[in-house]
Amino acid sequence: MDEKRSNCEKVEEEVERVVEEAKELQEAAATLINRTSSEEQSLRQRALSLDSNIRRLRSLLHSSISSTNNLLRFDSKLADKQLEEDLQKAQCLIYDGDASAFLPSKAQGAFVKMFIGPINVRASRKDVQLKVKEEYNSYRDRTALLFLLFPSTLLILRSWIWDGCLPAFPVQLYQAWLLFLYTGLALRENILRINGSDIRPWWIYHHYCAMLMALVSLTWEIKGQPNCAQKQRGVQLFLQWAMMQGVAMLLQNRYQRQRLYTRIALGKAKRMDVVWGETAGVDGQLWLLCPILFILQGFEAYVGLLLLKTALVGVVPEWQVSFCGALLVLMAVGNFINTVQTLMTKSRFKAKMKKSKSKPEF
Amino acid sequence: MDEKRSNCEKVEEEVERVVEEAKELQEAAATLINRTSSEEQSLRQRALSLDSNIRRLRSLLHSSISSTNNLLRFDSKLADKQLEEDLQKAQCLIYDGDASAFLPSKAQGAFVKMFIGPINVRASRKDVQLKVKEEYNSYRDRTALLFLLFPSTLLILRSWIWDGCLPAFPVQLYQAWLLFLYTGLALRENILRINGSDIRPWWIYHHYCAMLMALVSLTWEIKGQPNCAQKQRGVQLFLQWAMMQGVAMLLQNRYQRQRLYTRIALGKAKRMDVVWGETAGVDGQLWLLCPILFILQGFEAYVGLLLLKTALVGVVPEWQVSFCGALLVLMAVGNFINTVQTLMTKSRFKAKMKKSKSKPEF
Repeated sequence: MDEKRSNCEKVEEEVERVVEEAKELQEAAATLINRTSSEEQSLRQRALSLDSNIRRLRSLLHSSISSTNNLLRFDSKLADKQLEEDLQKAQCLIYDGDASAFLPSKAQGAFVKMFIGPINVRASRKDVQLKVKEEYNSYRDRTALLFLLFPSTLLILRSWIWDGCLPAFPVQLYQAWLLFLYTGLALRENILRINGSDIRPWWIYHHYCAMLMALVSLTWEIKGQPNCAQKQRGVQLFLQWAMMQGVAMLLQNRYQRQRLYTRIALGKAKRMDVVWGETAGVDGQLWLLCPILFILQGFEAYVGLLLLKTALVGVVPEWQVSFCGALLVLMAVGNFINTVQTLMTKSRFKAKMKKSKSKPEF
Repeated sequence: MDEKRSNCEKVEEEVERVVEEAKELQEAAATLINRTSSEEQSLRQRALSLDSNIRRLRSLLHSSISSTNNLLRFDSKLADKQLEEDLQKAQCLIYDGDASAFLPSKAQGAFVKMFIGPINVRASRKDVQLKVKEEYNSYRDRTALLFLLFPSTLLILRSWIWDGCLPAFPVQLYQAWLLFLYTGLALRENILRINGSDIRPWWIYHHYCAMLMALVSLTWEIKGQPNCAQKQRGVQLFLQWAMMQGVAMLLQNRYQRQRLYTRIALGKAKRMDVVWGETAGVDGQLWLLCPILFILQGFEAYVGLLLLKTALVGVVPEWQVSFCGALLVLMAVGNFINTVQTLMTKSRFKAKMKKSKSKPEF
């Protein structure tokens, strides 16, 4: 009986302690959350005012370099250059370091809001941001493989089993997969942008276009016999283009990933070298990647024009055909312009680097 | 000349200060992020061990109440009851308070991961979580209105302008809108669950089914004349059902929102009363809502069975018809079961509350 009583007392004590602990925990949690959010607020203000200060000073220096009739006149061009480099270093430090979490981020666009609402998707820690990017790359790797396998399987089955005439269901399954894939990619890229990635807006618009095309192609009836080969010419071309897209994605991923690893490695070694590393070591691959990208874009435009021709001649008179054709041409042109712009930025950057390297060291 | 020189010196000083400030900011940011994450880690461990302690004690007390031959024997049933209530209070404190941010959350399911990757979508602050829920409700409000307007416009135009025969494009536009709407709702509800909402998993599965149906209906050719009325019978029924759905959504939103406001108000007044507030003040509306929900579910099953019949008799032999029919029946049955279960939980809870209220106060 005594043993039972003491057991009871023990339980009562334990309950009391647990209730006490719950209260303490609640208080500790509230304190931490409040303190953290006020400290974050103050860091945000500091980051903001510092950033605008740096911008102001840089534009001041810039105008003093370009104009001869200026209030500022340093002892030498060199001193002026040195100041500008210092400012650039300071800017890199807050943009690439932990402080970047406290700079105002790009606004969460309407696209992300439509799907997931106003929830915050910005990671505050740099390593988490890099992990998100790494995961995005491996997601792209996986989808690139499917991009290669899915359409090639359809085309092989078409000539081996289906007697040159694709049945509607597997093609529609493929189109539905494309729709979800592109929606996911567009969402992830928007999230990467919010997390400070410098991805070009065009690539996101490109995925919006691809989403729209997948959606439209779903409503596009896949006609069967007779005269199947002619009616399905568009689908067939589209599948061939998708296979090439898979190869290009795999190559692009290899390149992008190497760039990221270089960034991470350099970032760990010395944050300031980040910009230097961008083009280091992957030049060889870029010259393999570019021709393939251009060929692909040419083929994309060709498929688009063929579709438009089919629609105008009147073989397949549905509006979906001309719409998809126009969209493909638009995407090809946009891709071409953006690839050329990227290459020009890179070569300009390299030329600048070479020039500053070849200058005699003072 | 002197003025210029002094200007230069001033700029040099400013640059120096800015560089210094950037270094300080970077250090402060790194310190805050590291300290916060280690403090969060320790709170997470405390919350976890406290939660498991409470669970252990509750099951200990529970077994002592139900069994007569037990190691524990308190002076009275009342003391035992009191201890259990204390434990429940402690549990509510960590589940509903700020500490809940440090309890392990529901895993980010495959659906969310597919679309947005591994980014964290859990808000740590309770007020942010409530804001997310409020935004979800207002999103539902807006969509419910569209749910009412979109199909009714189609049906009105059908009889006024289109001579009883819907053209394909507006219907497909509507189906595409449904697909994106349901994808967004499913994503938002998954995110609410991760943020601690007690939404029943069925309602999320229900939206997956609705997504699938919208997708399948997109591939389903909308046939025109001749014999349009017969061929479009399914589409027409579906639109009518969608209109009723809009009315039900509006009513449901009203009810849910009132519940949320009660929760927020009570939560602010005294956190522990949250559970009490759940059914307070909205009973009247529930008895208006329920018959409408049941009628809607019956109509949903009826539309599903009609579609199945059309497919089996062979009027419209496409697989999409029977698939959508089966899906509608499945959704109607699932909705019915879950509505009944919710009502039963509510009435059981109310009975318990009444019982404990009618007991003489000691």
